[in-house]
This record gives sequence, structure tokens and C-alpha cells, in this order.
Amino acid sequence: MTADPSGPMRLVVIGADAAGMSAANQALRAAKAADRPIEVVALESTQDTSYSACGIPYWIAGEVASDRDLVARTADEHRAAGIDLRLRSTATGIDPRERTVSYVRDGQERQVDYDELVIATGASALVPDWARWSDGGLIPGVAPVKALSDGRHWLELLRPGQHVVIAGGSYIGVEMAEALLRRRCRVTVVTRSRVMSSLDPEMSERIERGLVEAGVELVTETSIVGLDDTTASGLAVVSSAGTTYACDLLVLALGVTPNTGFTGLPTGVGGALCPDPDGVVADGIWAAGDCCSTVDRITGERTFLPLGTHANKMGRVVGSNVVVPGTLRFPGVLGTAISRFVGGDVHVEFSRTGLSSEQAEQAGIDALALTTEGTTSSGYMPGAEPIALRVLAERGTRRLLGAQIVGGREAAKRIDTFAMALWMNATVDNLAWADLSYAPPFSTTWEIAQIAARRVAERL
Amino acid sequence: MTADPSGPMRLVVIGADAAGMSAANQALRAAKAADRPIEVVALESTQDTSYSACGIPYWIAGEVASDRDLVARTADEHRAAGIDLRLRSTATGIDPRERTVSYVRDGQERQVDYDELVIATGASALVPDWARWSDGGLIPGVAPVKALSDGRHWLELLRPGQHVVIAGGSYIGVEMAEALLRRRCRVTVVTRSRVMSSLDPEMSERIERGLVEAGVELVTETSIVGLDDTTASGLAVVSSAGTTYACDLLVLALGVTPNTGFTGLPTGVGGALCPDPDGVVADGIWAAGDCCSTVDRITGERTFLPLGTHANKMGRVVGSNVVVPGTLRFPGVLGTAISRFVGGDVHVEFSRTGLSSEQAEQAGIDALALTTEGTTSSGYMPGAEPIALRVLAERGTRRLLGAQIVGGREAAKRIDTFAMALWMNATVDNLAWADLSYAPPFSTTWEIAQIAARRVAERL
Repeated sequence: MTADPSGPMRLVVIGADAAGMSAANQALRAAKAADRPIEVVALESTQDTSYSACGIPYWIAGEVASDRDLVARTADEHRAAGIDLRLRSTATGIDPRERTVSYVRDGQERQVDYDELVIATGASALVPDWARWSDGGLIPGVAPVKALSDGRHWLELLRPGQHVVIAGGSYIGVEMAEALLRRRCRVTVVTRSRVMSSLDPEMSERIERGLVEAGVELVTETSIVGLDDTTASGLAVVSSAGTTYACDLLVLALGVTPNTGFTGLPTGVGGALCPDPDGVVADGIWAAGDCCSTVDRITGERTFLPLGTHANKMGRVVGSNVVVPGTLRFPGVLGTAISRFVGGDVHVEFSRTGLSSEQAEQAGIDALALTTEGTTSSGYMPGAEPIALRVLAERGTRRLLGAQIVGGREAAKRIDTFAMALWMNATVDNLAWADLSYAPPFSTTWEIAQIAARRVAERL
Repeated sequence: MTADPSGPMRLVVIGADAAGMSAANQALRAAKAADRPIEVVALESTQDTSYSACGIPYWIAGEVASDRDLVARTADEHRAAGIDLRLRSTATGIDPRERTVSYVRDGQERQVDYDELVIATGASALVPDWARWSDGGLIPGVAPVKALSDGRHWLELLRPGQHVVIAGGSYIGVEMAEALLRRRCRVTVVTRSRVMSSLDPEMSERIERGLVEAGVELVTETSIVGLDDTTASGLAVVSSAGTTYACDLLVLALGVTPNTGFTGLPTGVGGALCPDPDGVVADGIWAAGDCCSTVDRITGERTFLPLGTHANKMGRVVGSNVVVPGTLRFPGVLGTAISRFVGGDVHVEFSRTGLSSEQAEQAGIDALALTTEGTTSSGYMPGAEPIALRVLAERGTRRLLGAQIVGGREAAKRIDTFAMALWMNATVDNLAWADLSYAPPFSTTWEIAQIAARRVAERL
């Protein structure tokens, strides 16, 4: 059963979040521009569309009033745009020869034919076996922070004064520490290696000091390995160091895994699909977003970096190309990321782009890394905040390889200057001599980004 | 009378601020590295060295406690570093054949021989004839804001409740408006064209709205042309529109002119010296800083942009090259600049880089310019501030030509992303697809810089 070849092209999109809906909307625009009839069907396993997963910790914190604020486009808006959106519809299989997708809705097996298929099923939070009952349900008081439904769940669970253990010290772990302090909880962060291990150790340390100063109990080089028998008084969370944490709630912030199992398609790094730069994974099948790996522009290697920014871009690429093949290409990633930790008087921002020292070593690149300390504005200005900038460059070629920032208010967004430099294959010398902006409220006369680059340049 | 050829090289530097002292210190470092004896003499007409002129409005505002905070390096520190620093020593002439500089100190004519000479005399505030007595002294209550001595003077003059007219609506004019509001003065800004005319009119307008909202009286398309007889009650400032402003004080914020007259050397745009990229203006004579024009990297034309960032870089280039010729080259400028206006609840940041629409037209470049509005962080975050971004790109080549930003807190420093892109000759497409940072407190999912670039890209 294939779609009617004389009718409009039928595009089926699996997943109605960033990547999927970017693809759907871009396809509608492209089809309109090309004057080509198109029919777009979107299958979404939850009841939510196009929401900011990154905003969930701030919603849990109470900074964002409602989950409605996090929704960029509602189901009704997508339908009004002409998308046949089917909620609570979970894709279960693909038949690439027959060009059909099987899915379950209201407990019933269904099928939909496609001419072109976009897989944008995203990624799910990693949940260890010990966090579930044998029937698969989560043990009460234990939950991840990934979907809007997780946010709703946490808002029901949280009470001031609770002791919450966070398993994981990466972005979600740190952002949840901020949210839970705001909710007046006692917070313990337990992390396998260190906080923000995608940064070099000395940069992680600066963030860790902020967490501890704000009152977070921090346990590094330790994993949560299980739960002891739960008593009426709460959870008993067991660490790899043999410590048992008696607590009320446990946040699972252990990373995500791409939702690709149902596809039957080959996967690579992290279990993710491997679309080519056009977004193609197989004949008539495209993929975009958190279910995909991407190519690191510096190493040329595939990497799994599920982020909304990439998802939106990949969705746009695929949406264009399904209508007019070859119009856009996804240009790869640098691993740029940013976040913050705020607690009491502590305000620590952090960001990264390109390779860390560990990544450079793994890639066999001879890198020099150097940390430079300074201030976000001229030292004599009342708003001046400390900032530390770690810059990596390659010996020989002098090309910039990466940068990491940890600092106070207005420190972290400077990473975009480095990201832009990396994007254009700049050397540290290019950056050191560039005409960047200066005024006392905004930087030192030699902008710290340039002092940091120059110090590396002088030692290469 | 020339310097002893068998002795150390004698470097004479005229001017002991950013460019001159960067050159002097870099020359000392370079000579040490090359194991070459050097003697550095610096002549400075004032009693101040290496200070932040850009910080003076914040000192006048009371945000910076003391002029000592603005001094990066004192005379004693320069002397301890091995510089023969001669304060209150005003250079009056150069004899390039004899390699001598004449100067006046304590009313006495003196001379110093040089092997290499660096001219770093900076620029002086433009003061119209009508602002001076016939003996050249400033009329009481009228003063510019350029040197540390000007700052001291303003702090003596200012009293709460005074009415101050500011002649000029560029950086110093706007920054003084902020400072004077903080000092509880009534402020009138009179500007020849519009506020911040190095931005496109619609961007200027956004800054102007901020000034007016904060209570500044703003008069555009008008110049101050003179003073009526001053009465005991204050000044009577006359505008080109025929209006007389009765006020207590008049700030001259009309720009600067390079201090090059005494040199007898050829000058170009704005009366500035025209060093080559190595810093050479004549045999054995180098120049750096605000007394120089620079080359605009986009148009290739000479431009007069006296800024501390360029002065520091040019000083470093010259300081290296006087010791080992050809080691560094000044790579030119983009016209990047940033500032802010804060008054009451109003906080407006603004910045620019590259060409404005007017500059592109003058350069004969076929440019498309488009303004994009958005927020500095995700719209649902409590700290989200409005931001407007104007992006210019060239039709045909698609290269980025310039950008301008006006917005709330944390808006303006994004200009560095554009400056870095321009520096590397990026197209708008490069910028639109780059891997820039996103998290809800720091940007929208599509960073506004990229939305703005993409919108231009789609219309080119």
C-alpha cells in the first residue's frame, strides 16, 4: 500500500518537537515556494508539541510560570498550519519497501503510507534498571527531567525542605541543583567524574566551588548504583562508594539515549542514526534532531550531541531537502554549549566550544591549552565579575581548537566569539588581533577573549 | 647631534598613554628577547600616564571612586620598568635628519636625540573658538571630557540640580548624559544629526527613545553655535535653531582631532598620521594610537577611529618592529564599538561593527540591510530583554558587511560574534548556520544573531 503517485507528496514525520516540526513547517514552506502539492502527517507519542526541554528546570524552579510558556507552537497551531498532527501516536516500525509506518494509537495498531519519511523521535532520558519496578514503572520519588510530563511530575513531588539527590553533574544536573535550591530543598549532587566533565578539570573545579558555596553537597567520582529498600520516610540511595543517602527524591540526570530502536535502521555512536549532510538515512527516509549523530567540524568524527540548536537546524535542512533535494546541508557542529548555576549570591556561568584537552588528545591533535583569568568589564567598574577563559590551539597550524569559559554574570556568552572563530577556521592570531568591542562596562581594554588567545599564541 | 652609535639603541616615545606605553613596554620586552641593549625615553605633556579615557564618564558619574582607579600604570611603575619618563614635557618639533625631538619642560626648550622615534601623541577634544576666551582659556562652565584633568575639572564643577547642556550625541555625549543624570543634573543633549550617528537612523532612534524616557531633553539636527553673554546665573548656550539654553554648564562632546601639528609630517583623513601596517611614517619614525588613521578592512580605505583598543594594538606592533622590523603588522579595523545609556529604569546597550548603510553606500557596495527584533534570552525567562539587530550583507557575494545592536541588558556584547565573522570574511550564511551557544537564560533557541543573519540571507 503506497501513497497515491498522482496525488500530493505525502510526508510523514515521526516526532512533533523541535526537529520534526521544523522539518514539517520548512517542507510546507518549500512546497509552497515550489508550487508542489504536499500532505504532512506528524505522529507524536506524547500529547505535547514543540516545547523547550531546556526550559524545564526553570519551570520547576518557579522562574517560568507555566508549561504553556515553554510551548513554542501548540498542536492547534500546527494543525492550523496544515499539518495532520496525530498525538499519542507511537511509531512501532517502518517498512521501507512498502513505505509505511506502523504506529499505536488508543491501543490500536495503525499504519500510514509515506512518500518521504522524517524520523525525528528525539532521545529519552537514561533510566537505570534499579530505578524501575519490574513492570517498568518508575519507583515513586525517582524521575528524570526530559519531557514536559517530567516537569509536571516534579512540580507535584516537590516540597520545601525535602532532601533531593541528583544523579549526574552535567547540564541537567547543575540546572536542577539551581532549581531545587530555589524550591528550598536540600540538594546533593552525585556525579561519576566531575561537574561538567565536558570542560577541562580545572574549569569544572570553578563550577564545583560555586555549587558548594551555594550549599550544595557535592560528591564527585561517584555513581548512584541502586536503591535500598524504601521506607516510609523516603528513599535510600546507594552510591558506588558504598554510602547510602537517605533522601526524599532522586533526580536522574544521567544523559539521554536516542529513540531509534523501532526503526530497524543502522545506528552508530551512542545508538543514533547517521544521516548524511542532506539528512538522508535511507531511500526515502530522512532523520533530524536528537535521534541523530552529527559530524564534529574539527575532528571530522561523528558525535552524539543532542541539542535543540542542532535539532532546529537539522529539521530545517531535511524539510527543505524532502521537497527539493540538495537545497541545504547541515554543516556539522562544534560542541558549543552554555549554562549557569545560580544559588543565593552565587552566580556562575559556563560555556564551551570546540575540543576539550581530553578530546584533543583522543583525536591525536597536539594541543596547547592555557587558562587566563580576568574580569568581564574594566576592573574599576562596579559590575566587574571574574572570568576564566581556557583556550586550546594546535601546535604547528596555530588553529584555534576550543575554548571554555567559567565566570560571573555576563561571562559565558562570549563563547560565541570563539565559536564563530572556530567556525571560520581561525588561528589564535586571528582572534588575538581582531577588532572586538570595548567600553568599560563591557570588557577590559584588551578584551579577555583576546588576552587569552594572545597568551596561547605567544607560547605556541 | 645623534645618539651614540656604539651605545644602546635610543627609542624616544612621544606620549605616555595607551599607544606610547604599549610601544615602550613592548620594545623593552622585544629588546630583552633579542638580547639587544635599548634605552627608552618617553615625553608626556601632562602629568598622567596610561589611563582609561573611556572610564572618565563613569568616574564623573561616581561609579568609579577615584582617578587612581583609571590609571593602568603609574609614572613610577613605568620608571621601575626602565623607562626614562619625562612628565610635563611637551614635544614641539622633530628634526628627522638630525634625529632629534625638541620639547618644552618647565618653560625651557630641550632636545633629545633618538635612533627610533614613536609618535603617540593621541588626540585632543575639539573645542570651538566660541568656547574660549581670546587668550585661549576655556570659558568657565564649558569643558570637554577627554583627559584625566577634564574629569577632575568636571567633578569640581558639578552640583545636583544643575542644568547641563551636552553638545554632541556620540559616545561621550551619551555617556555623559548617563553620568549627569546620576549626578542628579537636568540634562539637555544637542546633536548635529542624531544620537549615535554611526548607527543607521532606525537604530539611533531606539537609543534616543531611551534618553527621552530617562528624562533627557533631546534636540537633534541642531548644533551649538555659540554662547551669549554669560550672566551671573550661568551660561546662555545658543543653537543653530536660534534657541538659547540657559544652563549652568556645557559639555563639549564634539569629537577629537589628532595631535600631529608639531610633527611637520604629512597627514591624511582627519589630520591624522598614516603609518603603514608596520607602523612606519618616515625613516626612523613610527606612529601609533589616536594620532593615526587606520585601514578599514572592508573598504580598504583609511579611516580615523581613535579608540583605546586600536591604540594598544598599534603600540604593540610598533614596539616590536622598532626592535626587530617586520615582526608584527597592524591588521586594520572594522569600526567595532560598544556603549550604553543607563538612566533610572532605562538600560539601553548599543554596539556596531563593519559598515553602516550610509558607509556601504559611500563605498559603492550594493548592500541589503534588515533589522530583526527579538529577546536576549528565551522569551519565557524573567531576564529576557528586547534586542534589535541590524545586519548588512552584500548582494552577489553574500558577505557580511556590518551589524548594529540596540537592546537591554546583555544585548550589545553579541557584536563580537559579528566582528569575528567579519574579521574572517564570513558570509551571512556562515553566520546563520554556525554552532552558537543556547540555553534559556542566554538566548532564544535560534540565537537572535543567527535569526537576523538568516533573514538577510533569505532576501539576498
